[in-house]
Amino acid sequence: MAASPKYLSGDSAAIREFIDEFDIFLLDCDGVLWSGDHLFPGTVETLEFLRSQGKKIVFVTNNSTKSRADYQKKLTSMGIPSDVEEIFASAYSSAIYISRILKLPGPKNKVFVMGESGIETELKSEGIEFIGGTDPAYRRDITPEDYTGIADGSLLDDNVGVVLAGLDFHVNYLKLSHAYHYIKRGAVFLATNLDSTLPNSHSFFPGAGSIVIPLINMSKQQPTALGKPSQAMMDSIEGKFQFDRKKACMVGDRLDTDIKFGIEGKLGGTLAVLTGVSKKEQWEAEDAAAVPAYYVEKLSDLKG
Amino acid sequence: MAASPKYLSGDSAAIREFIDEFDIFLLDCDGVLWSGDHLFPGTVETLEFLRSQGKKIVFVTNNSTKSRADYQKKLTSMGIPSDVEEIFASAYSSAIYISRILKLPGPKNKVFVMGESGIETELKSEGIEFIGGTDPAYRRDITPEDYTGIADGSLLDDNVGVVLAGLDFHVNYLKLSHAYHYIKRGAVFLATNLDSTLPNSHSFFPGAGSIVIPLINMSKQQPTALGKPSQAMMDSIEGKFQFDRKKACMVGDRLDTDIKFGIEGKLGGTLAVLTGVSKKEQWEAEDAAAVPAYYVEKLSDLKG
Repeated sequence: MAASPKYLSGDSAAIREFIDEFDIFLLDCDGVLWSGDHLFPGTVETLEFLRSQGKKIVFVTNNSTKSRADYQKKLTSMGIPSDVEEIFASAYSSAIYISRILKLPGPKNKVFVMGESGIETELKSEGIEFIGGTDPAYRRDITPEDYTGIADGSLLDDNVGVVLAGLDFHVNYLKLSHAYHYIKRGAVFLATNLDSTLPNSHSFFPGAGSIVIPLINMSKQQPTALGKPSQAMMDSIEGKFQFDRKKACMVGDRLDTDIKFGIEGKLGGTLAVLTGVSKKEQWEAEDAAAVPAYYVEKLSDLKG
Repeated sequence: MAASPKYLSGDSAAIREFIDEFDIFLLDCDGVLWSGDHLFPGTVETLEFLRSQGKKIVFVTNNSTKSRADYQKKLTSMGIPSDVEEIFASAYSSAIYISRILKLPGPKNKVFVMGESGIETELKSEGIEFIGGTDPAYRRDITPEDYTGIADGSLLDDNVGVVLAGLDFHVNYLKLSHAYHYIKRGAVFLATNLDSTLPNSHSFFPGAGSIVIPLINMSKQQPTALGKPSQAMMDSIEGKFQFDRKKACMVGDRLDTDIKFGIEGKLGGTLAVLTGVSKKEQWEAEDAAAVPAYYVEKLSDLKG
């Protein structure tokens, strides 16, 4: 059995020791900083406190529909000051992976995108060519000509070498058909993240994983995922920020994504907060997805 | 190891014995009678020969987009004479299952449909109320009002007791969100069939199973499937045609659907044809999905 996590809330000596242990904090957002449209009290002050102690902050989110610039707007709208360089979202993670790790030789390095504009913005920022995405040409019903042209390849782009699928509010049969055929023809299969659901309006809606799963079902292939808990995302973060993993702490509300992400990434620490999805009983269970090293009731307990 | 299947092609005594053994033949269509738009030579004559010997014919297909009447039109267009009562498709199978086996008490017995008009026609023929399906009100983008109204239930129909999902060429985020929320609120989860792909233009496109799988992924529930190889379909066929299973033979080209369907249904026989998906090597393999009792090169070998 894993050791029990250390409870920090209200113990100022333990909090001091905890904070001194790390140089960088990777923070999940929804469930940690806010819930839905509700900013948790003390979030802004806690982030300021950590920065004042010389700690580096990185906002790490699986949200694939937003670019870093879009996500910074969201942070601003929630009243949280941030720098765009502090933001690491799965669309950006995917673009970094394609351009700096995958590095496919041209011309067969174009990306077929299933997803929204955030992915497109990040691909552009890395100079990656793509088709699909928000192009209205793909937002329509499939036709008999599509079937024959997709089947014989005459309607496919020979230079597509990657399929990148993420949350797509405009998922349809035509796009699934294109993506499947590119994978069948040998394109590298990537997913921004595999979360089955997405929180909205205090409930859940289809997440990126539920857009990607028809492609898995048809192709019998698993994509490389670029969101938490995939270590491809950790590698991208480390590639960008260059830090000592032993001096890094992952902070999150979900055992199966955030805490698992930090443990498998061999970070120095993981901190669970109880303001989101996972509850104390979950890491106390025999079959816990992951057990954090530390926990607090709420993030603002860190500012003592 | 299972016994080897008996090879009938060219052996007229064995064929005679085989035919005498059965009263009813359940025939898969694509890969058995035709491939794509190509009718196999001798198909019509073989069906006539079987009928002339007093055999009952049932066309059994997982196609969920067509009603029996639609499917008869397809048979006619291929040049195959048939009676609508000889046709058993998964949309009809689903309607029969809902009305005669599930029999939910009103008023909470309405069906939310993900699928095309074939399903609607068959539900109507069984007097089953439904929403969704081809209704243009669901063929659009999701809005902020949808999120809140689906989450709080104000946009959901309290009388929905069943979600029936099949092949939907108009699958979208809004319909997936509705279907998921009905399942989450306790609706019975049914699928017309779970084929991951659908043959078209000598290639493959998303099948019903790839439309249903996001709902499985989100709800963590498995649907009851009403197509081959699900025995719910066999029960529906037996309920309608009232035959002795020992005097019935399933004929098909796919081990994992057709032949499995016949074996698990404890039919007297299963006959594989080599004009479709599965090849001889597949049932000779250690991990064969199912091993037929008999096989022929092509269906027309039966007429000697």
